Amino acid sequence: MNAIKASAQLMIQKIIAENMPEESVIQALKNHDFGSKKVYLVAIAKAAWTMAKAATDYLGEKIEKGVVITKYEHAMGDLPNLDIFEAGHPTPDEATVLATQKVIELISDLTDRDEVLFLVSGGGSALFEAPQDGITLEELAKLNNDMLASGADIVEINMIRKRLSKVKAGRFAGLCQPASVFAVVLSDVLGDRLDTIASGPAAPDESTVEDAMTVVAKYNLALSAAQKTYLSQETPKALDNVKTVITGSVRALCESASKAAMELGFTPYILTTTLNCEASEAGRFLASIATGTVAGVTHFKRPCVIIAGGETVVNLKGTGKGGRNQELVLSAAEGISGLANTLIFSLGSDGTDGPTEAAGGIVDGQTATKLKAEKLDIDQILANNDSYHGLKAIDSLIITGPTGTNVNDVSVILCK
Amino acid sequence: MNAIKASAQLMIQKIIAENMPEESVIQALKNHDFGSKKVYLVAIAKAAWTMAKAATDYLGEKIEKGVVITKYEHAMGDLPNLDIFEAGHPTPDEATVLATQKVIELISDLTDRDEVLFLVSGGGSALFEAPQDGITLEELAKLNNDMLASGADIVEINMIRKRLSKVKAGRFAGLCQPASVFAVVLSDVLGDRLDTIASGPAAPDESTVEDAMTVVAKYNLALSAAQKTYLSQETPKALDNVKTVITGSVRALCESASKAAMELGFTPYILTTTLNCEASEAGRFLASIATGTVAGVTHFKRPCVIIAGGETVVNLKGTGKGGRNQELVLSAAEGISGLANTLIFSLGSDGTDGPTEAAGGIVDGQTATKLKAEKLDIDQILANNDSYHGLKAIDSLIITGPTGTNVNDVSVILCK
Repeated sequence: MNAIKASAQLMIQKIIAENMPEESVIQALKNHDFGSKKVYLVAIAKAAWTMAKAATDYLGEKIEKGVVITKYEHAMGDLPNLDIFEAGHPTPDEATVLATQKVIELISDLTDRDEVLFLVSGGGSALFEAPQDGITLEELAKLNNDMLASGADIVEINMIRKRLSKVKAGRFAGLCQPASVFAVVLSDVLGDRLDTIASGPAAPDESTVEDAMTVVAKYNLALSAAQKTYLSQETPKALDNVKTVITGSVRALCESASKAAMELGFTPYILTTTLNCEASEAGRFLASIATGTVAGVTHFKRPCVIIAGGETVVNLKGTGKGGRNQELVLSAAEGISGLANTLIFSLGSDGTDGPTEAAGGIVDGQTATKLKAEKLDIDQILANNDSYHGLKAIDSLIITGPTGTNVNDVSVILCK
Repeated sequence: MNAIKASAQLMIQKIIAENMPEESVIQALKNHDFGSKKVYLVAIAKAAWTMAKAATDYLGEKIEKGVVITKYEHAMGDLPNLDIFEAGHPTPDEATVLATQKVIELISDLTDRDEVLFLVSGGGSALFEAPQDGITLEELAKLNNDMLASGADIVEINMIRKRLSKVKAGRFAGLCQPASVFAVVLSDVLGDRLDTIASGPAAPDESTVEDAMTVVAKYNLALSAAQKTYLSQETPKALDNVKTVITGSVRALCESASKAAMELGFTPYILTTTLNCEASEAGRFLASIATGTVAGVTHFKRPCVIIAGGETVVNLKGTGKGGRNQELVLSAAEGISGLANTLIFSLGSDGTDGPTEAAGGIVDGQTATKLKAEKLDIDQILANNDSYHGLKAIDSLIITGPTGTNVNDVSVILCK
C-alpha cells in the first residue's frame, strides 16, 4: 500500500473510533437524574447495541429490563436484563414487527414511577415499526421502495411512513405514558431534526396532514383506503413526558476527520457538513477541487485534506448494487485520473453503504486505468448504479463491518 | 438594493472588465514579429470584434484586409480594412457559412510572404463553419442538437463536428498555406486545449478516427453515408506554419473574482477552476457550502467569497428556456432559503448563458420565498429546464449584454 492510501486507512479508523457512541451515552446519563424511578431500556436501530452496552455498563442493576432492536449482524453479544433482537434494514421485516411488539409489551403497563431510557439511532425508521391496524408490511415496503426509487429524501419518506405507524412520530412516547421518557439520540440526519431521526418515536411531529398530502402528490403515490385514513390523522404536536439529549452529528464526524488529518500531517479544510446533492455529481465536483488543488490554483495548500460531510442522494436508474458513498467516489475517479498523490474516499459511518457490506469506497489517480484494464467502463457502471461491483473488481471498497455507530457520511480528498 | 447585492453587482462588473481581451491581444502582438510579411486578419467567434478592434488599434495600416465573424449583436461598429459579419450561435446558420466562405476566399491565394493574424475565441465551433461537400447545415445542426441534448461534453461534440468541416481541426491553417499563421487564442475551454477551443481551426488534432467512432457509439448517433466517410478521414496531426499564443482562461476569471472580493472587503477562497458537473447539482453543493459557512462550521470565515470556475453541464429534460448558470443558481435557492447576508451568483463571462440574453442569475435567502409568492415551484421549473423564466419573474437575472469576452463561467458565493 502506498503512503497516501495508508494515511487514508488510518484516517478512516480514527474517524470511526472517535464517533462511537459509548462516551456520549455515558455523558448523557451522568447529566440525568432518574430519581427513584424504575428504569426500562429501549434501544433501537443501527447503534442500538453499542448504546445499550454503554448504558448497562454505567447503570448496571438500575435497569429493570429492556429491549434492544438492531440490524442483522449488529448485536455483539448478550447484555444483562435485556432482550436483544435483530431485524431487517433498510426494509423492515417480520422480525422488526415482532421485536417492536416486545417493546410495546414492555412499556404498556408502566406507571408514573417508571422511566423509559430510550436510546435512538439512525435506521430506526426501518428497525422500529408496528404498522397501524389494516396496513401490511408489504404495503409499507412497497411504498418505501417506490419513494426511494423516485428520489424522495429521508424527510419526505418519513413524513409518509410515520403516519402509517403505531410507534413513529411521537406515538411511542404516547404509549409509554404515564411513564416518563429520557431519550438519548445519536443523530444521522442533517440538521439533527428530532422528528426525522428514526422517524421521531419520542418527538412531537412538526409535519402536518397537508405536508404529507403534498408529498403524496409530488411522487404520485398510489394509496389504499386504510393508508388514506391514517395519512389524514394528525400526529402529536406536543409531548410532556419526554426529555431528549442529542448526541453525535455529522459535524462531529467532519471534525474528527479534520483532527485525524492534522495528526497525519495534512492541513484540514471542511467544505460543508450538509452535503445533500446527487452522489455522482458530488463526486465530480470533489474531483474538480482535487484537480485544481494539485495544479496549485485553489485556496487549498498541499499536503491537505478536504472534507465534505452530509448525505448525498442516488436517484436510481439501474439495477446494480451500490451505495451513495461508492457511487460518489467512482464518479470522481475519471476526474482525478493520472494525478499522483491524490485520493478520494467516502464513508458511511455505520459501516454499511446502501444494501452492501461495504462502508464506502476509495479511489485515486490509478483507479480509472485499473478499471479499464479490467474492461470495466465507469459510465456504464454508474448508469447501472453498480458501483459496488466496479470498486470490488479493483479492490477499492472500504470494508469496516458494522461499526456500532451511525452519524451519517463523510467524503474526503487527500492531496499530498 | 441591499448591501450584499450591491457588492455582487460590483464584483460582476469588475470580473468582466478584468477579463476583456484587448490588453492581452496587444501584449501578444507586441511579442510577435511579423517582419516584412503582409498581415491578413481573421477574427472569429464571440470575442472576435473586441479582439479585432485591439489588433487594428495596435497594428493600424499594417493590416492589409481581413474578415471578422461574430455572433449576432456582438459587432460594435466598423473597423478599418475589415469586413465584419454576424452569424448564428449556438447553432450555425447560412450567415455563418457565407462569412466563412469570405474567410476562405481571403486566405486562398496567399503566398509565403503573407501572414494570417488569427484571433480565436469560444463559440467558434458554431461561428466558423464550412461543411464538407455533401454535408448540409441542417444535418450539422441536428447532430449538434442531438449531442447537446444527450449531455455530451464540448470535447466530444467537437470531435465529431470537426471532421465534417473544411476549417476545423487544423484544416483552416492548412488552407492558409503557404502563408504562415499567428493565432491568438482566448480560451473558454477547461484545460485550454487548443484542439478544442473553437474546434481548433489552426491546431493539430489529437483525436483519432477511433476516438470519433467511440463517441458515435456512446451517444448512438445516426449518420449519413457522407458523414461516415468524413468521420473516417484522419485530421492533421502536425502544422508547421502556425505559431499560437493562448490568452485568457477561467483561472484568470477566478483570480479576478478573488481580487474583486478583496477590494470589497471579503476574504476570497477559490474552490476549483475546472467545475464540470451537472449545473443543478453544483448549485446544491454550493448551497450546502454556504449553509455551513453561515453556521460557522466550515473552513471559510465570513465575510467571504467562495469561487468556483468552470463549465457545468445541463442534461436537458424539459423544453423551457435557460442556461447552465441560471440553472445552477436556481438549484441553490432552496438550500440557502432563509439565510441572511448570503447570496450566490453564476455568470457566463460572454454575457449570454445558454440561448438567453441573460449572462446568468443571482439568488439569496429570499429567492425561494419570492418564487413561492409568485406561485412558482422551483422543482417544476428545474424539471422543465426553465430557469430563465423562473429567475426573470423575480428580477434575478444578470443582464450584461454581450461582453466582448468569453473565458467560461464563474459561480460565486458571498457570505457577509
